[in-house]
Amino acid sequence: MPIEPERLAKLTMELRRGVLILAALSALQQEHYGYSLRKQLASFGLEIDEGTLYPLLRRLENQGLLTSNWREEEGRRRRFYQISEDGQEALAKMNCEWNNLNKAMSILKENTL
Amino acid sequence: MPIEPERLAKLTMELRRGVLILAALSALQQEHYGYSLRKQLASFGLEIDEGTLYPLLRRLENQGLLTSNWREEEGRRRRFYQISEDGQEALAKMNCEWNNLNKAMSILKENTL
Repeated sequence: MPIEPERLAKLTMELRRGVLILAALSALQQEHYGYSLRKQLASFGLEIDEGTLYPLLRRLENQGLLTSNWREEEGRRRRFYQISEDGQEALAKMNCEWNNLNKAMSILKENTL
Repeated sequence: MPIEPERLAKLTMELRRGVLILAALSALQQEHYGYSLRKQLASFGLEIDEGTLYPLLRRLENQGLLTSNWREEEGRRRRFYQISEDGQEALAKMNCEWNNLNKAMSILKENTL
């Protein structure tokens, strides 16, 4: 009997969640508004729906890792996000952890089936 | 003012959490008891304390992704864990997601600062 799709989705989501934070901070070294960030992440293969991205951006801003400001562009008011100084520090740390995890997973794969 | 260490630790932990599930399932393609699994993961650079590993193993077993049995070895009763058929299916899916995330992060790094 195959494993239920919801259970599988939950496991892969757990894997994605941390990476999405890293990806968002990384991409926001350049300024983006929500939709342009989503488009950029999607162009790299990281699809993220609005219901996940916007709460994540709010959370990262509340934690002081992002700053945002409203501005009019192309005749529309948009909220632009960019990484803060604290965010840069967090990003550096997360990049370092990411590299360690990658190394570990490569070694693990060589040593398991 | 530098970002507080607890906040940084929480972010890196979020990144690690999903990877630890993937790593545990992957390593448990071979049978292990708790301590031998911890030692193996640590040898790959994935340090994980008992207070994190044991609840994770219980959770994965409750979800049907692992099986376990008590056995005496070297004069001590030990609980041995191994991946189940459902676990193999979940592992395949998570490996696939992991590869996608890796590709995405590589492209992202090439395209951001």
